[in-house]
Amino acid sequence: MFHGCTDPKPQFKEKYFPQIMDHFNFNSMGNGTYEQRYLITDEYWKRGSGPIFFYTGNEGDIWEFALNSGFITELAAQQRALVIFAEHRYYGKSLPFGQDSFNIPEVGLLTVEQALADYAIMITELKQQLGASACPVIVFGGSYGGMLSVYMRLRYPNIVAGALAASAPILSTAGMGESKQFFQDVTSDFENYAPECRDAVRGAFQRLQDLAQIEDYGRIQSAFSLCKTPSSYKDIHQLNGLLRNAFTLMAMLDYPYSTHFMGSMPANPVKVACDTMLGGADLLHALKDTAGIVYNSTGDLTCFDLYTLYVECADPTGCGLGFNSLAWDYQIEMCFESNNVSDMFPLMPFTEKQREQYCSKRWGVIPRPGWLKTQFWGDALSTASNIIFSNGDLDPWANGGVRKSLSSSLIAINISEGAHHLDLREANDADPASVIKARKMESDTIAQWVKMEERKCLQRGF
Amino acid sequence: MFHGCTDPKPQFKEKYFPQIMDHFNFNSMGNGTYEQRYLITDEYWKRGSGPIFFYTGNEGDIWEFALNSGFITELAAQQRALVIFAEHRYYGKSLPFGQDSFNIPEVGLLTVEQALADYAIMITELKQQLGASACPVIVFGGSYGGMLSVYMRLRYPNIVAGALAASAPILSTAGMGESKQFFQDVTSDFENYAPECRDAVRGAFQRLQDLAQIEDYGRIQSAFSLCKTPSSYKDIHQLNGLLRNAFTLMAMLDYPYSTHFMGSMPANPVKVACDTMLGGADLLHALKDTAGIVYNSTGDLTCFDLYTLYVECADPTGCGLGFNSLAWDYQIEMCFESNNVSDMFPLMPFTEKQREQYCSKRWGVIPRPGWLKTQFWGDALSTASNIIFSNGDLDPWANGGVRKSLSSSLIAINISEGAHHLDLREANDADPASVIKARKMESDTIAQWVKMEERKCLQRGF
Repeated sequence: MFHGCTDPKPQFKEKYFPQIMDHFNFNSMGNGTYEQRYLITDEYWKRGSGPIFFYTGNEGDIWEFALNSGFITELAAQQRALVIFAEHRYYGKSLPFGQDSFNIPEVGLLTVEQALADYAIMITELKQQLGASACPVIVFGGSYGGMLSVYMRLRYPNIVAGALAASAPILSTAGMGESKQFFQDVTSDFENYAPECRDAVRGAFQRLQDLAQIEDYGRIQSAFSLCKTPSSYKDIHQLNGLLRNAFTLMAMLDYPYSTHFMGSMPANPVKVACDTMLGGADLLHALKDTAGIVYNSTGDLTCFDLYTLYVECADPTGCGLGFNSLAWDYQIEMCFESNNVSDMFPLMPFTEKQREQYCSKRWGVIPRPGWLKTQFWGDALSTASNIIFSNGDLDPWANGGVRKSLSSSLIAINISEGAHHLDLREANDADPASVIKARKMESDTIAQWVKMEERKCLQRGF
Repeated sequence: MFHGCTDPKPQFKEKYFPQIMDHFNFNSMGNGTYEQRYLITDEYWKRGSGPIFFYTGNEGDIWEFALNSGFITELAAQQRALVIFAEHRYYGKSLPFGQDSFNIPEVGLLTVEQALADYAIMITELKQQLGASACPVIVFGGSYGGMLSVYMRLRYPNIVAGALAASAPILSTAGMGESKQFFQDVTSDFENYAPECRDAVRGAFQRLQDLAQIEDYGRIQSAFSLCKTPSSYKDIHQLNGLLRNAFTLMAMLDYPYSTHFMGSMPANPVKVACDTMLGGADLLHALKDTAGIVYNSTGDLTCFDLYTLYVECADPTGCGLGFNSLAWDYQIEMCFESNNVSDMFPLMPFTEKQREQYCSKRWGVIPRPGWLKTQFWGDALSTASNIIFSNGDLDPWANGGVRKSLSSSLIAINISEGAHHLDLREANDADPASVIKARKMESDTIAQWVKMEERKCLQRGF
């Protein structure tokens, strides 16, 4: 099974692990097991003693992450590690109740705690099966996967010797920080390329709003090549969301070479976007073309369908794009909003109340805003150890993460020219110096954790 | 509401907290709240800045623990702390589904993780309500409650600054250690008083076995004043369990003064038992009288009912004696056994297989032997901090706990003359020097944790 444009390297084997459905209730409907998918390669492994690099899968098909995290296998080749990419329950092919997984109450077993327990059990049992009891385990993850890596180290330091959490917004997702930060940081990326770019985007959105105000829906349809004529405030809101999301994705995925992750992106998309915004005579047309960089990279679409190209949810990047939108829609609970003051986007409030209404209506659940903070230590992380928090300055998620080292073993690495977990990607000739340096620090730190753990094992008499 | 023979001091207020039923599944049957009981006193509290001493309730009515843990309130008076005793879900009056709580599947929400989340939520919310946001929280617990205190510090160091875990068998309950250890240590207590005492006990059990072998049930009934004539191997097994349990309780509760905790006990019950065993002419009669110290302390019983005085379960001390036996029978999963070689008791094997069959038949669940070890760090505790593991050398549970300090902030305190969490009890003139010294160390260490936490708070700008 291949994704993207190159064959997977190395050749991962795709396997399934019989996983406990409900770790926290012995008498629930989830009284059995499900088949959890994972990818594994022992190509580089120093059998029985080399470390285990374990990717804590996040909200999507696990192949997507395996094929976009080449750094981990490159590091495995250097440090002679076994590599495992584990798929998160309720994503990809790891559906506990098959096609019924997104029914109520079946969806109820989709929680962070269950996912972490899955990984703890899988690591423990695979180590036994593979004769790897003495092998230190390092967890890796990007974005939500990085949050899971942090949580694994907090929750299971008995199982996990260290974590590389790339672009993990563990503070903002725990409700710490400001709701306006995210779109402000998206805006900065474009502003830093050229202040006129930011002004053009803001101006284009204003034009759209003016047309919407006078209900000139025909003009809006033609300007944005929409498949259907918009007919309501709801459609305009959806269009605004779709357009804003294009900028968000280009900021997040502002890599120095073209990529195929969360859709296709040209090299340096922020530059491409700004050149497009500033190159056209008509602002609305320019905005449409800029959105086309994201939604119509092949040029095949003759019109834009508002509701299939973008699915609104609590994630500011939407719930779609090949990621398992239903599961993510259930899980995600941020309240980021644009305000047109500290950012260049239309005023689009998103309050806890709105979220609560949605979750209650769609999923029959009430979000618990303080929960992640209570469960996963909030900003009181100083008693933890052996975690790297890496973040790229170009990434709008970065300021929701840990940006300053908290101790000698809780290390923040900031990558000045990095977008969303660029450091996890395979080496590329276009890599900026800052990511090369970051990967070197990560590599050295991980080697040191592995060594420490091996020493501890020897002392315990393995 | 008074228990025991003295009024509660201080005067706790009994309150209820609306608690989330199911913390880990937003779509389960437990979609509401239940009333969780707690006791609170602010009599000694330096309002708004003094620490909070929080007892993580274990398997019983919370008053039982509050009235037998006077050290905590004495310490609160010294350190000007708020004191809270929280009742564990499914015990006492904290029944999530009322009288249906022990049905299947309702009993499924009885797990360690749920109980810990209860405490985390309760602490967080009560701190807000009481204007105590800046107040460091220290958790206390004895036995299983001590395990919960350890787990709270492992899981929620963001909420809990330190833990005093008294007589917490966190290693043996996680499957580490030997199944014969427990009854061997019970035996040692009697042997250390007098080797002849051990021999007399062993001899008496042998006599009983001889009678059982020839099925002289009438003789057995009269020798032990049983209400009904035993008629089967099962009844003899139950009698052996009941008798063995009397010795276990006397070893556990071998306090230097009379107590009313888990039943009534004279001062120095091991001495009383041995004097009884060695004082009578007839071994069987002596064994009956010794059991009577535990089961007939008032002398009111005219005969012993095998199945009401003692309820066999995976806990070597049985499931009864005022503790909520149904819930504990569901929760408990040890495999301690006596073998008549390293201990003075009859051969009474208890295998994982037997336990599995029982749990499956009675509760529809299959135990997961590795679970506590996976979830709560097993013997890899060295990354934790701020925990005191206290144990009494007289306590048969002691060797299932942490007996050596693991670091400068993971402190083992061994109390040479202490039985089961003697250190948590209020000061008494009969206290041995070793417990006085232990309490002093505990008090100093806790004061230091509180100070450190206050300093951190100041730095964070509270």
